[in-house]
Amino acid sequence: MFGIVGVPIIEVAMAAQVAGIKYVGMRNEQAVTDPVFKCRPVIVIGGSSDRNQETTGAFQEFPQVEACRLYSKFAARPGSLAMIPAVVEKAVRSSIYGRPGACYIDIPGDMVNGRVEQTSVRFPSCCPPPPVSLASSQEIAKASRVLREAQRPLLIIGKGAAYGRAEKGIRELVEVMGLPFLPTPMGKGVLPDDHPSCVSAARSRSLLQADVVVLLGARLNWMLHFGFPPRFSPHVKVIQVDLCAEELSNNVRATVALLGDVRAVVGQLLQSFRSDPWRYPSDSAWWVTLREKMASNAQISKRLALRTTLPMNYYTVFQHMAELLPRDCIIVSEGANTMDIGRTMLHNHYPRHRLDAGTFGTMGVGLGFAVAAAVLERSQQTGRRVVCVEGDSAFGFSGMEVETMCRYKLPVIIIIINNNGIYSGVGPETWREMEKMGELTTVAPPVTLLPEARYEQVMCAFGGRGYLVRTVEELRSALQQSLADIASPSILNVLIDPASDRKQQVT
Amino acid sequence: MFGIVGVPIIEVAMAAQVAGIKYVGMRNEQAVTDPVFKCRPVIVIGGSSDRNQETTGAFQEFPQVEACRLYSKFAARPGSLAMIPAVVEKAVRSSIYGRPGACYIDIPGDMVNGRVEQTSVRFPSCCPPPPVSLASSQEIAKASRVLREAQRPLLIIGKGAAYGRAEKGIRELVEVMGLPFLPTPMGKGVLPDDHPSCVSAARSRSLLQADVVVLLGARLNWMLHFGFPPRFSPHVKVIQVDLCAEELSNNVRATVALLGDVRAVVGQLLQSFRSDPWRYPSDSAWWVTLREKMASNAQISKRLALRTTLPMNYYTVFQHMAELLPRDCIIVSEGANTMDIGRTMLHNHYPRHRLDAGTFGTMGVGLGFAVAAAVLERSQQTGRRVVCVEGDSAFGFSGMEVETMCRYKLPVIIIIINNNGIYSGVGPETWREMEKMGELTTVAPPVTLLPEARYEQVMCAFGGRGYLVRTVEELRSALQQSLADIASPSILNVLIDPASDRKQQVT
Amino acid sequence: MFGIVGVPIIEVAMAAQVAGIKYVGMRNEQAVTDPVFKCRPVIVIGGSSDRNQETTGAFQEFPQVEACRLYSKFAARPGSLAMIPAVVEKAVRSSIYGRPGACYIDIPGDMVNGRVEQTSVRFPSCCPPPPVSLASSQEIAKASRVLREAQRPLLIIGKGAAYGRAEKGIRELVEVMGLPFLPTPMGKGVLPDDHPSCVSAARSRSLLQADVVVLLGARLNWMLHFGFPPRFSPHVKVIQVDLCAEELSNNVRATVALLGDVRAVVGQLLQSFRSDPWRYPSDSAWWVTLREKMASNAQISKRLALRTTLPMNYYTVFQHMAELLPRDCIIVSEGANTMDIGRTMLHNHYPRHRLDAGTFGTMGVGLGFAVAAAVLERSQQTGRRVVCVEGDSAFGFSGMEVETMCRYKLPVIIIIINNNGIYSGVGPETWREMEKMGELTTVAPPVTLLPEARYEQVMCAFGGRGYLVRTVEELRSALQQSLADIASPSILNVLIDPASDRKQQVT
Amino acid sequence: MFGIVGVPIIEVAMAAQVAGIKYVGMRNEQAVTDPVFKCRPVIVIGGSSDRNQETTGAFQEFPQVEACRLYSKFAARPGSLAMIPAVVEKAVRSSIYGRPGACYIDIPGDMVNGRVEQTSVRFPSCCPPPPVSLASSQEIAKASRVLREAQRPLLIIGKGAAYGRAEKGIRELVEVMGLPFLPTPMGKGVLPDDHPSCVSAARSRSLLQADVVVLLGARLNWMLHFGFPPRFSPHVKVIQVDLCAEELSNNVRATVALLGDVRAVVGQLLQSFRSDPWRYPSDSAWWVTLREKMASNAQISKRLALRTTLPMNYYTVFQHMAELLPRDCIIVSEGANTMDIGRTMLHNHYPRHRLDAGTFGTMGVGLGFAVAAAVLERSQQTGRRVVCVEGDSAFGFSGMEVETMCRYKLPVIIIIINNNGIYSGVGPETWREMEKMGELTTVAPPVTLLPEARYEQVMCAFGGRGYLVRTVEELRSALQQSLADIASPSILNVLIDPASDRKQQVT
Repeated sequence: MFGIVGVPIIEVAMAAQVAGIKYVGMRNEQAVTDPVFKCRPVIVIGGSSDRNQETTGAFQEFPQVEACRLYSKFAARPGSLAMIPAVVEKAVRSSIYGRPGACYIDIPGDMVNGRVEQTSVRFPSCCPPPPVSLASSQEIAKASRVLREAQRPLLIIGKGAAYGRAEKGIRELVEVMGLPFLPTPMGKGVLPDDHPSCVSAARSRSLLQADVVVLLGARLNWMLHFGFPPRFSPHVKVIQVDLCAEELSNNVRATVALLGDVRAVVGQLLQSFRSDPWRYPSDSAWWVTLREKMASNAQISKRLALRTTLPMNYYTVFQHMAELLPRDCIIVSEGANTMDIGRTMLHNHYPRHRLDAGTFGTMGVGLGFAVAAAVLERSQQTGRRVVCVEGDSAFGFSGMEVETMCRYKLPVIIIIINNNGIYSGVGPETWREMEKMGELTTVAPPVTLLPEARYEQVMCAFGGRGYLVRTVEELRSALQQSLADIASPSILNVLIDPASDRKQQVT
Repeated sequence: MFGIVGVPIIEVAMAAQVAGIKYVGMRNEQAVTDPVFKCRPVIVIGGSSDRNQETTGAFQEFPQVEACRLYSKFAARPGSLAMIPAVVEKAVRSSIYGRPGACYIDIPGDMVNGRVEQTSVRFPSCCPPPPVSLASSQEIAKASRVLREAQRPLLIIGKGAAYGRAEKGIRELVEVMGLPFLPTPMGKGVLPDDHPSCVSAARSRSLLQADVVVLLGARLNWMLHFGFPPRFSPHVKVIQVDLCAEELSNNVRATVALLGDVRAVVGQLLQSFRSDPWRYPSDSAWWVTLREKMASNAQISKRLALRTTLPMNYYTVFQHMAELLPRDCIIVSEGANTMDIGRTMLHNHYPRHRLDAGTFGTMGVGLGFAVAAAVLERSQQTGRRVVCVEGDSAFGFSGMEVETMCRYKLPVIIIIINNNGIYSGVGPETWREMEKMGELTTVAPPVTLLPEARYEQVMCAFGGRGYLVRTVEELRSALQQSLADIASPSILNVLIDPASDRKQQVT
Repeated sequence: MFGIVGVPIIEVAMAAQVAGIKYVGMRNEQAVTDPVFKCRPVIVIGGSSDRNQETTGAFQEFPQVEACRLYSKFAARPGSLAMIPAVVEKAVRSSIYGRPGACYIDIPGDMVNGRVEQTSVRFPSCCPPPPVSLASSQEIAKASRVLREAQRPLLIIGKGAAYGRAEKGIRELVEVMGLPFLPTPMGKGVLPDDHPSCVSAARSRSLLQADVVVLLGARLNWMLHFGFPPRFSPHVKVIQVDLCAEELSNNVRATVALLGDVRAVVGQLLQSFRSDPWRYPSDSAWWVTLREKMASNAQISKRLALRTTLPMNYYTVFQHMAELLPRDCIIVSEGANTMDIGRTMLHNHYPRHRLDAGTFGTMGVGLGFAVAAAVLERSQQTGRRVVCVEGDSAFGFSGMEVETMCRYKLPVIIIIINNNGIYSGVGPETWREMEKMGELTTVAPPVTLLPEARYEQVMCAFGGRGYLVRTVEELRSALQQSLADIASPSILNVLIDPASDRKQQVT
Repeated sequence: MFGIVGVPIIEVAMAAQVAGIKYVGMRNEQAVTDPVFKCRPVIVIGGSSDRNQETTGAFQEFPQVEACRLYSKFAARPGSLAMIPAVVEKAVRSSIYGRPGACYIDIPGDMVNGRVEQTSVRFPSCCPPPPVSLASSQEIAKASRVLREAQRPLLIIGKGAAYGRAEKGIRELVEVMGLPFLPTPMGKGVLPDDHPSCVSAARSRSLLQADVVVLLGARLNWMLHFGFPPRFSPHVKVIQVDLCAEELSNNVRATVALLGDVRAVVGQLLQSFRSDPWRYPSDSAWWVTLREKMASNAQISKRLALRTTLPMNYYTVFQHMAELLPRDCIIVSEGANTMDIGRTMLHNHYPRHRLDAGTFGTMGVGLGFAVAAAVLERSQQTGRRVVCVEGDSAFGFSGMEVETMCRYKLPVIIIIINNNGIYSGVGPETWREMEKMGELTTVAPPVTLLPEARYEQVMCAFGGRGYLVRTVEELRSALQQSLADIASPSILNVLIDPASDRKQQVT
């Protein structure tokens, strides 16, 4: 459920040992601390200076618990050695009960080597799985009524549905009741992206024209345009399922507020539909509209994907990746266009098989996520591969973690979609022009990175495999080889057209 | 003071433009934000979400000013577009007036593209250089008296003396009054490390036996063992020169507290010695003790440096580097043993030519410092080279910044002292044994990194030069070639004995 | 549901008007801000300096939102005038959804007089009542099983049960299932304190010997001795009902964790008992034990209450108050012994009729609570009286609010149990001795207050009624007069024995 | 500097004892904590919950150090019992070295009763008096030059000059160099307010027309209109004397920045004028202008003061108080008009004899200041009286501290200038009208308090003396009686015209 990571400082490693927690030694604190922003159920253990040196200017003396407060659900320094097990239990419990989030535990240096009478220690047992609650019957009845009356219904499947393991019920909701659905980035895979009822390819239109939206563990934040016009109808009715009471009616007043565990609440909805069967007609005007829009958007993507000009564009690259990636791989992703376009082109087929920058949009999380995922898959012997799709700028935040992958022999496949910049870069010729004009030494090109940087060699430096990819053939070959190698990580450095962009969105 | 850095996000770059500040686009936020810990006079500009989306779940909505409070001397979001120049002026002034430190300015997204009537804006002119104050005459007289009566005096030259540009006066104090001196890590170079009065080679003894210590912009924190026994005499008299009143008598009550600008106060001390001349005898028992200890320590270092066995040890490597590096190069350094031993072996000859992890000891700052220093030296056309001496673990924090160096064509020389781990690693054979035993996939080796990692190839990946170095000859050759190349950065990956360690310290 | 209070500064009053919130002008910020500590659903609106003066040293320039963060569920400054309604809606919703708590809204001075186009403002409608969730059927079944098997069951009724309006269901649980119950301080009155199943008079024993404890919106914090031995059995089974997931299994692992709205969950439990009827036998050994203990404790209290020596003791005073107070009065209370003993002696007969210092134990909240309650009762024309039982020290925190009561003509009855100190004081003779010895001017008597202070005159100063009470007769007469006067507030200054103490607790 | 106060909780009193600090037990935390806002050199000691109960929901568990961070120069919890003396020394030193400020020390409950081997404790001796620094000679020379060339010079004497005990030098500057001066609220008394060179009576004009302003420990914040036009000339030259480097050139760029101890720097200025004598001509046009303006303003005040209509106005009241108050009394003051008008009418004749709400403008500080001042004067046996001039609203914040005064027998004279409201109130007749109309029970009158409240009876309630004052005769008589009584505190409740206001200010 949650991996524990730490910074490569011996004191922290020892602190983790004290706390009885598995430790993965990474290269960069950022790879550890950025996920904290992501509201993921993570626990970070930090080492701090000896308590009796505080206020004297001790090594790295700093109010760390205080500094972590804003980022954490729970942050504490155990009051004594004897309190460590209780504080760890509370941190673990706090990170997974209610809305998941990060917790911080501070272990002063003098605790690392301290000793305590075992009898003075309270050892709480590990917490039970998160408790589950249900929505009230009246609200369920109301939800059922509102859905039955909907002209243009839409399910939105959020991260909460994935965390809540609600896939089975949601599939029935979609398939038996005939409802269209749209996943959020981290909700992808709860149902397969290639499910015929998935309307991702008509995302903008589906949001705009829906008259009833069912939020299944999804929030009306910036990722869903706050639920506000002009991206939503001003008259949209919201049926909101969430385990966090404070989230209900946030930004848009919910017509029906279903407070509870998303899996359990979906079960309640199904129950109500089973006892009084109903199915949204598959030949409704709404489905016709959505299918037309999806087809036309698919057409555009396909046209872009089929282009054979070099350098390649995003769509061509993702099209071929999609064809080759195993259906059960874990896709980790970060970047700007890379993450955004990749999200639409690379399908997830299983829940909780995607990790990306998510709501907070922090860059630098990809390699840390990939390491954690690969360690987990190995320890569970699932045979699932971890594929890390990175923008070239995003890779730069934590790129040194390829050493971690080589060190632990984690067969992660990193695919860098390299356009020489952030949002867009320039090609090598333009760069050489700029060089000649002396611009590079005097003017800061804030969004342009070095053209055709050989990121794959960074992997080679640590014994992994590196591939430079310019063509479709090279891409397919390199990806097949990487997939065949289960013993070591690899980087595919895919050079694309620096001017390649997202296709225009038309509602 | 020396420049402004930012994260490679277009909004921030534009925010910097709005603020009229030079922007260097780096790969990793950490390379930008870690120096903030270092109390360096740095200004960080962050972009935040649009103000009228706050509380609705905006993109990267977070109380950034609040989060920066603990790390900053001054942190603010301008109250309006019209306030930006005044807030920037205040941030710059706050960062360099009084004790230098970091400041944070928050620019919401909607300000980046906002417009304002020029007449409504107050444009303060840039602040004058930091104001200078002097110590009181009585305290100066008292300091003079205490020094004249000292049996075993010692000057300690701190970072404050470097910031305060006090080198000329301190040299006179040392040379005319005949006093021994000891620099702190960031105080190195205020006087040359090879100055005959520098007692760094007898550091522990000089601290322990001194009866009068003159702190010149140095703090009695962990780096100076808090000034406490058993590392200091319980009867030591402290003459403390500092521009920060709150620092005076911290941990140890100052016998003489000289509040003021270190350059000015040293001038006052000199004045008092000029008007009533005095010189500490160079044949005193104290000098004899110190010189003996220095000679015997030098002996040990030399013996270690002369070892010809392979892999090399720290001392051999630093000895040859020291012979070849230009006297006026900027030395940037971070790591554990690498920074500690390198500090003793690599001499600085000029003030403010060294940047290391300093008081706070944060890893990950080296490459950011090197980029900033190289940009500055180039813009001032000094011809000075920047040499970055990194432990292999330290390099991993911000290693991707080599792309930044290549992109800006900054001829930084990075020398990685590679012992395959943190404090100590293991050799490739041991590693292979561990691999065979399956330990690497199950057990976390928290302080061991991949043996013989080819860090130099990371530089090659971006067009810089990389050298793998195993022998003295390879070291000298690679360093000479790197120094000869003024157009591009290079990495020397120097493989040393993983068991190499610091020599024993005996007082 | 919630009252809004503010500090008597015109800007804040105007800010409240801007926000469309009813304003009560009080005398002391503390009377306003202390309840914030109490996790009560309160909204505080603060005025701050003009935005375009920030960073220049504006009047009362301070990061107020930041300063309120630790105390608030939600704290924000609207990003613009247009955002005010949305921020107020969010604050109100956040304060009552999920676990109730305080919220802070910051209104800068320039917003108070600002103007905005109405069309640019989003006006969200007021939030619906808090959403309700249920526990899972499996856990309900498990709870039922555990209860049926209990030898020595105990219901603990907490503040959450009061907030959740669960009284009807809980009464059925108690009366039909025959279970003993114990209210927490703020849970008093959910069922009447004089209910035959209330075992408050055997509190310590019931906690210690129970084998199954049902927590109904109560937390195992310091008020319940953390649920730890030696105050609880180490083998106690906890059935925990709470709407806050993170609270479940806190300190003691719950045998059954019922996440949900306490009223709804109690309904589920009742349902399970109705479908398979069960009743805990009223002649069990457990009931016998509890009734014996209650009788013996009641005996002790009664003996103390019947004492006729003067000065009176706590028990005598409370006994007579209890006889005269209307059953439906609102009892507000704070103090040390006053609050603790008063809690046992003054019975509540209706839910949500008691407000005391509660979990956090902050002193100074009493008069603020009383003002808020009296305003509410008047506006709802209930005719219920507010009686404020104060320790003499506690009264000193916000005593000036008697002017507020007189100003608004709120007929609050304040009864000060005056023992001349904190925990205990000294009598006037001892005091005069101390005075003669000169002790009062040189030695600080930290827990002793001025003997026989005439607090009742403070009320007279503002036109209210004041009574000095030394005897039972005076007490009864003054209380009867106060109750008869519905137009003005009064103070009964009840002088008791400074050495009066709580009776010994024996388990 | 002047004493330590705490909240009346026994644990805190004991914590103070542990810390070896004198304790004054007050009634209201606010009277203790509000001065913290005022940047006064105060230390607050707080008690917190037992360390080994933290994270379990302990009594008053709260991150108190963190909560105090924003308000404090230094806030810490000692890391162990052995660290308490060192932390106290650091807090005391931090509060008086550099710019004075408040510090917070947190003592957990388990430390209060803890024990430690004395040999393990480091006992630092109390810190020396604050260190003193001087300005550089060049800046002094420049200041001298700028002053000699000034057409319309003005000295502004700030709180820093009072703290820095610079009165002797400043008097010479004024009297020998012939310069006009203006004190800030807390700078009053450094030179006597009735000094012929004091231009307070022409404040607005002197600020607006000065061409050279010398800031002596005064800040260009809101109290001095930020130094901005239209209240200052856009061409004003600022000579700024301050011990805080970061304050220099704040808001307005200093023409001369004199960093140093204000007393020492004034000495340097005098030295430069002594060696090259200069005197600003007393017959300059500037002096003529100022004297005319002062005379005409004095005229207006006098006319107001001489009015004999009842109720009295502010000016009449202050005029008579000024005539009777001893020249050496300590004047404490807070309120709106009361503080503002009182500041102009009640002269201070000695430095550091005035304590008011100062820069931050917090209400509620008056009685706490008065208690502290009275304790100090008594312990030093100066015979000086403390007079506390309070607005009626301001008194309400901490009015219960009159009990503290009676308890400690502190002969403070509290004079309440009672206008029935904040800024302005209504008279009893209007109030009765409002009452009849039912307005008082339905409408909140945010700035109106109860008319003719008998605050003086609050003092009587605790054995002090109370006087209701409506006429000049009553005022004089009551004040004379109060001054004659050196054994007990008194309140003069001075009823003035609710419509009384400040006279119009004309530049």
